[in-house]
Amino acid sequence: MFLGGGRLCALRAVCTCTDLGDDPGVQPSAEIICVGDELLAGDTLDTNSADIARFLRLWGVTVRRAVSVADGEAAIVGALEDALGADLCVVTGGLGPTGDDLTAAAVASAAGVDRVRSPAAIEAITARLAARGHACDEVQLRQAEVPAGATIVDNPIGIAPGFALDLRGTLVVCLPGVPTEVRAMLEGLASLLRARLGDALGPRPRRILRVFGLREGDLAGRLEPIFAALGLEAAGAVVHYRARGPEIEVTIDVGGAPSALVDAAISRAREALGDAVYGLGEADLAARVVAALIAAELRVASAESCTGGRVAAAITGIAGSSACFHGAIVAYDNGVKSGVLGVDEAILAEHGAVSEPVARAMAEGVRVALAGHADIGVGITGIAGPGGGSPAKPVGTVDFAVSDGERTTHRRLHLRGDRSTIQAHATAWALWLVWERLRERGLAEVTELAELA
Amino acid sequence: MFLGGGRLCALRAVCTCTDLGDDPGVQPSAEIICVGDELLAGDTLDTNSADIARFLRLWGVTVRRAVSVADGEAAIVGALEDALGADLCVVTGGLGPTGDDLTAAAVASAAGVDRVRSPAAIEAITARLAARGHACDEVQLRQAEVPAGATIVDNPIGIAPGFALDLRGTLVVCLPGVPTEVRAMLEGLASLLRARLGDALGPRPRRILRVFGLREGDLAGRLEPIFAALGLEAAGAVVHYRARGPEIEVTIDVGGAPSALVDAAISRAREALGDAVYGLGEADLAARVVAALIAAELRVASAESCTGGRVAAAITGIAGSSACFHGAIVAYDNGVKSGVLGVDEAILAEHGAVSEPVARAMAEGVRVALAGHADIGVGITGIAGPGGGSPAKPVGTVDFAVSDGERTTHRRLHLRGDRSTIQAHATAWALWLVWERLRERGLAEVTELAELA
Repeated sequence: MFLGGGRLCALRAVCTCTDLGDDPGVQPSAEIICVGDELLAGDTLDTNSADIARFLRLWGVTVRRAVSVADGEAAIVGALEDALGADLCVVTGGLGPTGDDLTAAAVASAAGVDRVRSPAAIEAITARLAARGHACDEVQLRQAEVPAGATIVDNPIGIAPGFALDLRGTLVVCLPGVPTEVRAMLEGLASLLRARLGDALGPRPRRILRVFGLREGDLAGRLEPIFAALGLEAAGAVVHYRARGPEIEVTIDVGGAPSALVDAAISRAREALGDAVYGLGEADLAARVVAALIAAELRVASAESCTGGRVAAAITGIAGSSACFHGAIVAYDNGVKSGVLGVDEAILAEHGAVSEPVARAMAEGVRVALAGHADIGVGITGIAGPGGGSPAKPVGTVDFAVSDGERTTHRRLHLRGDRSTIQAHATAWALWLVWERLRERGLAEVTELAELA
Repeated sequence: MFLGGGRLCALRAVCTCTDLGDDPGVQPSAEIICVGDELLAGDTLDTNSADIARFLRLWGVTVRRAVSVADGEAAIVGALEDALGADLCVVTGGLGPTGDDLTAAAVASAAGVDRVRSPAAIEAITARLAARGHACDEVQLRQAEVPAGATIVDNPIGIAPGFALDLRGTLVVCLPGVPTEVRAMLEGLASLLRARLGDALGPRPRRILRVFGLREGDLAGRLEPIFAALGLEAAGAVVHYRARGPEIEVTIDVGGAPSALVDAAISRAREALGDAVYGLGEADLAARVVAALIAAELRVASAESCTGGRVAAAITGIAGSSACFHGAIVAYDNGVKSGVLGVDEAILAEHGAVSEPVARAMAEGVRVALAGHADIGVGITGIAGPGGGSPAKPVGTVDFAVSDGERTTHRRLHLRGDRSTIQAHATAWALWLVWERLRERGLAEVTELAELA
């Protein structure tokens, strides 16, 4: 960390005009600027805004706008001008060594200062390259050029350091565009925030009700009258609905609403929605399934055709999942369905690969194939498209089965969307059907659960 | 489609001030506005901007800015005002039936018109619900309220239709926020664009050089002198570098540069970078590996530990991959490595799961386990973190092996980043090592390849 307390206190002293620690009623505000032609060409998905916004929310900072602009000095300066008035402006991208990296020049221009080669940045870049066995050359040293007066922000995993500068009362923090580097630099951003905004900073309380398988309109039709009757929003709370495939999150930003009222709203909502509610809090369905399996000391295994490994990937995305997941079989071809999962070739021939009997045989077969390493098998076979559909089994037809040794259940769904959407939604449904089975056995409870590691 | 030619011509007639078809030298411009508190809270990744931007680029429309704003009428109106001057403004989100859906109200307010219940929208919503066996109620009908004078844009897969309205010379097109619905509605957007901007509309030519495994700084150090010596940017081209994990895209926006000059630049760049270049054009590494395997009539299978199914998912994400991929084994637990892949337990005990011998045995074992369904096996075993690291094998240590029956090669890498990054980068490297093997066998060529289905 280059950000010692002394430097940060100095930074804070410079900007007492935006010392927001004094008024706990006003939440500090931020804007996010992402720099990169690739964002505006649709070549790159911007994940930095979401990572930074999430981080800031947990710090109690309200992001009022996030904007992506081109690799051009004028565009960046314009976005910086628009962000003035916010307490914080986080910029990502445009700090690399290539000719289209113009963020430092734009910030210097907006601040009316020169660019200088920062000794701290030179030292950091040289050390980072040396650790990888490389010498530091002129191209790499371009990354040491920052606006005069800027504080260097350490980049613990990449070459280009970030920097921070006060711009007419707004603290501008510039980070590289590489998402892993941004995530690794959030700790440095935390130090800056702590120094600037003080200990009064705290997250805005919110409650999340997690729902699966209802249409957003249905959900609103059921919940809005409940919330209105309780006067939830009149008391200062704000309710948001967010659908992500078959999962919907109902978020209540508590605001000034009394917590007893919010508790009552959540309780009534749960009564109205029944088993469609699978959890409260930040953790998503994959994390809940993993937590429930671990608590029940059960292991799940997937036998995947159209999802092609995505169910296994979703589970192994959760740290600690090795306690409930030992392996999976991707059986994309019928030969693997029969040869590895033991699906009867006669069943495949009679019913086709996308059918109830095949899904059942896959779910049962993966428990046998992973002998001793799977208590629950989930089988998924369907038509992800764009080809392969027929009038009887159009694209989006997916058969699921769950087998736990006691019994095997089946469900057929008709999913909508393009190939990647069908694959993603089928993955979510597979996790849900495992959740349902656990719930039927009394092994899945609706709990308040923060995100797992 | 609600957008008949007549209505669109009327729309066009209203706005001759922005009839850009007449001047082929000026590219039409667009802004994108994404509405949703969930975007600014970091709960949702905005994929709509990238989908829309990509679509517009292919239509020759330059996106000059993309902005995410909160679910608030004032915030949306502010963003609309900022977008005036662009030829087109595409808004996503805030069209649903819930109380936080405020886009129609904001557009009406910005345009100074009332909101009306559109008969065409009522008809569409009712028909869509009926097809799913649902009646249309008051909550659903909220989605039929659009600004007076707006044209309805059909939503072929969801309930809420979109709408389009001329706002002081800028064509504002509002779509729902659900990514699958946005993608499904792009065809409607195409009709609007064609009517508004005429046939002169065409994509801005660009060339892409796809590179793997080099650092961005290294790449720039090698390519910039070449491009400078050729006078590429002086001739009107613009070069962009974009790193996505170990993959880097070098994009040359051709602009006014002569195509012979661009060809020369690409040729010299390929000479300078050698085998690090794996392709030209839009198709990414997974698509290239799939295309090369299909051309060579070879099938690949993955044996995955730390990547947990992501290699299989990347391959099956490509339509048509069933011709080169029959299945995979996710062997997360050592018991599955030995029991299913046949990795010798003594090797596991002596070298540990993350080791060269185990990676080799996995790559070889998956070919045996999928008897007759895999010509090339790729094994991946590593430590994705956050736990499980040691001084000898820190988090990020990953062993890879590729086996094709002739020989088995091994590579150990030390990847940086958090769990999801290590898993994603290890997935890219696994694909790359398959590519390298194919290239060594003369089966992978650097070709110009547009995106596969």
